[in-house]
Amino acid sequence: MSNYSIFTSESVSEGHPDKMADQISDAVLDAILSDDPNSRVAVETLVKTGMAIIAGEVRTNTYVDLEEIVRGVILDIGYDSSDVGFDGASCAVLNAIGKQSGDIAMGVDEAEAKDLGAGDQGLMFGYATNETDVLMPAPIYYAHRLVERQAHLRKSGVLPWLRPDAKSQVTLRYADGKPVAVDAVVLSTQHAPDISLSDLQEAVREEIINHVLPEEWLHSDTLYHINPTGQFIIGGPMGDCGLTGRKIIVDTYGGMAHHGGGAFSGKDPSKVDRSAAYAGRYVAKNIVAAGLAERCEIQVSYAIGVAEPTSISINTFGTGRLSDDEIASLVREHFDLRPRGLIEMLDLKRPIYRPTASYGHFGRELENFTWEKTDKAAALQSAL
Amino acid sequence: MSNYSIFTSESVSEGHPDKMADQISDAVLDAILSDDPNSRVAVETLVKTGMAIIAGEVRTNTYVDLEEIVRGVILDIGYDSSDVGFDGASCAVLNAIGKQSGDIAMGVDEAEAKDLGAGDQGLMFGYATNETDVLMPAPIYYAHRLVERQAHLRKSGVLPWLRPDAKSQVTLRYADGKPVAVDAVVLSTQHAPDISLSDLQEAVREEIINHVLPEEWLHSDTLYHINPTGQFIIGGPMGDCGLTGRKIIVDTYGGMAHHGGGAFSGKDPSKVDRSAAYAGRYVAKNIVAAGLAERCEIQVSYAIGVAEPTSISINTFGTGRLSDDEIASLVREHFDLRPRGLIEMLDLKRPIYRPTASYGHFGRELENFTWEKTDKAAALQSAL
Ligand SMILES: C[S@@+](CC[C@H](N)C(=O)[O-])C[C@H]1O[C@@H](n2cnc3c(N)ncnc32)[C@H](O)[C@@H]1O
Ligand SMILES: C[S@@+](CC[C@H](N)C(=O)[O-])C[C@H]1O[C@@H](n2cnc3c(N)ncnc32)[C@H](O)[C@@H]1O
Repeated sequence: MSNYSIFTSESVSEGHPDKMADQISDAVLDAILSDDPNSRVAVETLVKTGMAIIAGEVRTNTYVDLEEIVRGVILDIGYDSSDVGFDGASCAVLNAIGKQSGDIAMGVDEAEAKDLGAGDQGLMFGYATNETDVLMPAPIYYAHRLVERQAHLRKSGVLPWLRPDAKSQVTLRYADGKPVAVDAVVLSTQHAPDISLSDLQEAVREEIINHVLPEEWLHSDTLYHINPTGQFIIGGPMGDCGLTGRKIIVDTYGGMAHHGGGAFSGKDPSKVDRSAAYAGRYVAKNIVAAGLAERCEIQVSYAIGVAEPTSISINTFGTGRLSDDEIASLVREHFDLRPRGLIEMLDLKRPIYRPTASYGHFGRELENFTWEKTDKAAALQSAL
Repeated sequence: MSNYSIFTSESVSEGHPDKMADQISDAVLDAILSDDPNSRVAVETLVKTGMAIIAGEVRTNTYVDLEEIVRGVILDIGYDSSDVGFDGASCAVLNAIGKQSGDIAMGVDEAEAKDLGAGDQGLMFGYATNETDVLMPAPIYYAHRLVERQAHLRKSGVLPWLRPDAKSQVTLRYADGKPVAVDAVVLSTQHAPDISLSDLQEAVREEIINHVLPEEWLHSDTLYHINPTGQFIIGGPMGDCGLTGRKIIVDTYGGMAHHGGGAFSGKDPSKVDRSAAYAGRYVAKNIVAAGLAERCEIQVSYAIGVAEPTSISINTFGTGRLSDDEIASLVREHFDLRPRGLIEMLDLKRPIYRPTASYGHFGRELENFTWEKTDKAAALQSAL
C-alpha cells in the first residue's frame, strides 16, 4: 500500500476479449516453444465479431498449425456458438505473422554469442507485499478470485446461464497498511437472455461475491454493483474488440505497484518485458519472504542488444530492515539480472505461458510459475 | 519520486508502430467527433507489414472516409515509400468497425438521462510533481523531448538519413528527491542504409542527446547506448507489429506514477479510461501548482453505468501541507468527477485528440490540452 487508505483494483475473466487475445498469443507461443525452445516469438492477436487475427514476428525452426491453435483456445474458453456471440469452430482466422527483423535478430544474436543482449529496451517493475499469504496486494488478489469463481460456476454448470465474458472490481479500505473492509465491489457478467436481472444479482451476490470475499470485510455500507448496465447478453468480441497486451495492470499488481508498460503475452523470454518482470516479482517476493521488508518494489531497465541492466533500484517504502541500497547490493549478489541469467534462473524456455494469460501472472503458486518460488529467502535472510 | 534514487523512463517517436496505431485511432476519433460530438467511439488499430486494420465499436450520425484518414496519418508521419518500409498511399486498409453494443449503449444512455453513467468500469490515476516546470517527472519529460527532437531533425531535413521509427530511454539519478545526473541514455533510431554507425552515433549524440539533456546532468560516467543493435534500417510495422494502447506508460508518467491500465487513443470522452485519467492529471497538477503538496497522486474508480465514482483517494507521499484526507475533501468540493462533470470541466467533446497521441498526453501546455491548465490553483490555495 503506497499509503492509500482506499484502493481499487479490477480483473477480467478468460472470456473477456482482451484476455482471449492474450491467451491466443500465449498458446501460439507455447506451441512454437514446445518444438524449438530457442524460437523468437512476438505474436499479437486482435479479436472482433466473427474473426481472430494473429500478427507479429517469429523466428523458428518448427511448423505449427496456427489456425487449429487459435480455434482450440476460443472453444476452450467457451465461445462455441453464435448464441454466445462467437464460435471458434466457424470464425475467420487470419494470419499476418512475418519473420523477425534481420536487424533485431543480428543485434540480439551478436550479443548472445557473448552474453545474450536484451531483446528490446524497456523498464520493468517487480513487487511483493505481506498483506496476503501469497504476498500479493489484496485488491487484485480478490478481483482475480471473483472472475475465476465466475468461470468455475459457468464451466461446472452450477449457474448455467453464465457466459464467458465478465469483469470484477474491488475497492478495499486500509487501516495501518492492512485491508480491513470492502467499500465497493463491481461484478458484470455476460448472461443468457432467459435470466432476470434480480435473479442474476442474487445468484452473483451469494455464489460469487459472498463466496470469495472475506465475510468480516463486508458490512452494511458495502456498495454492490452487479451488472449495473442492466443487460449484458452481447459479450466477447462482439461487444468489444480485444487486443493482446491491453490488460497489463490486471496481469500484474492491479495498479498497486508501478508498471514499465511492457506486455507479456505472445513474447518469448528473450524479451525482457516478460522475463525481467517475472524476475522482478521473484526478487521482490523473496525479499519480503525473507523478512527483509514488508513491501518491496524493484525497477530494472535494459538497452536493446546490451546484457547488463542500465539500472537496478529498490524501494521498500520505509519498511526495510536494511537500507534500500543494501538490499539492492544483496539483489546484485544473489540474482543474475542479465537476460540470459533471467531465463536460466526461472527456466523460461518452456511452453508454460498459456495458463499465465488469465487470472494473473503473479500470486498463483502453480508448479511452472517458478517466479513465485521463495527458494532464495533463506540465503537472503542470512544477510540480516 | 517514490523514494527511488535512480529512475528510468522511456518514450517512442511518432513513427513507432504502436504510436502509429494510437495516432490512427485518434485521427478516426477526431473525424467522427468533428461532425457529431455525441458519438461513441472505441477504435483500435493494428499495423503490420503493408497493412493497417481498424476495428472496434462506433455509434454516430456521421459518415467519414476512414480509408483516407488512415492513409493521411501514415503519410504525415513519414511512411511514404517502400524504401522506408511502409507506404500510406499503397498499403492495405482494412475496416472491421461495428456498432456499439446495444446493451452498453442502453446502460450508459439510461444513466445519461439522469447523470451520465461511466462508459466502463475501471481505475485511473493522475499525478504531478514539482520536479519540472510543467510539473511532470523528469525522466519521461526528457525521454519525450529526445524523440520529439529526432522527429524535428528528420522532418526539417537537418539529418536527412533519419527515418520515422525511434525509441529513447533516460535513467536519472536523484538526490533529496530532485534529479541531479543522467546515469544512462538509450536512443535507437531507424536510419537510411547509407550512414555509417559511427557517423550516426556522433550526430545523435551531438544533435539530439546533448541538445536536449541539461548539460550539468551529463558526466564522465554517463552511459550512452546509441543504436546498440548496430543496424536499424528495417523499422515501423515491418520490424514490429503495432497496436493501439500498447504505450500506456509512455502516454502518462513514464512509470513514476501508478496506472489503472486503461488506454486512451481511439476512445471518446464518455470512456472514463480517458476522461478520468485526464481529469486526474488536472486535479493533481492544480494541487501541486497551489502549493498544497510537492507531489500528488489521485486514484479514482468507476462502475459501468454508474455516475458517482466508487472511490476517490489522494496520496501526497508525505509532502502535503494538509492531510491526504483534507486534500481529498477539497478535491470533492472543487472538481466534479462524475463522467459528465469531467467532460464539461475539460471541454472534451471536441476533435482534439490526434496531437495527444504522440510525445505524451501530459506535460505539454498546448492550447487544447485543458487538463494542463492550473486555473483551479488559486481557489485551492485559499484553503491553506
Ligand atoms: C464496456 S466495454 C468497453 C467499451 C466498448 N468498446 C464500447 O464501445 O462501448 C468493456 C468490457 O465491458 C464488458 N461489457 C460488455 N458489455 C457489457 C454490458 N452490457 N454491461 C456490462 N459490461 C459489459 C466486457 O467485458 C467488455 O469487454
Ligand atoms: C525490438 S522491437 C520488439 C521486438 C520485436 N517484435 C521482435 O520480434 O523482436 C520494438 C521496437 O524497437 C525498435 N526497433 C526495431 N528494430 C530495431 C533495431 N534493429 N535496433 C533497435 N531498435 C529497433 C522499434 O521502435 C520497434 O518498434
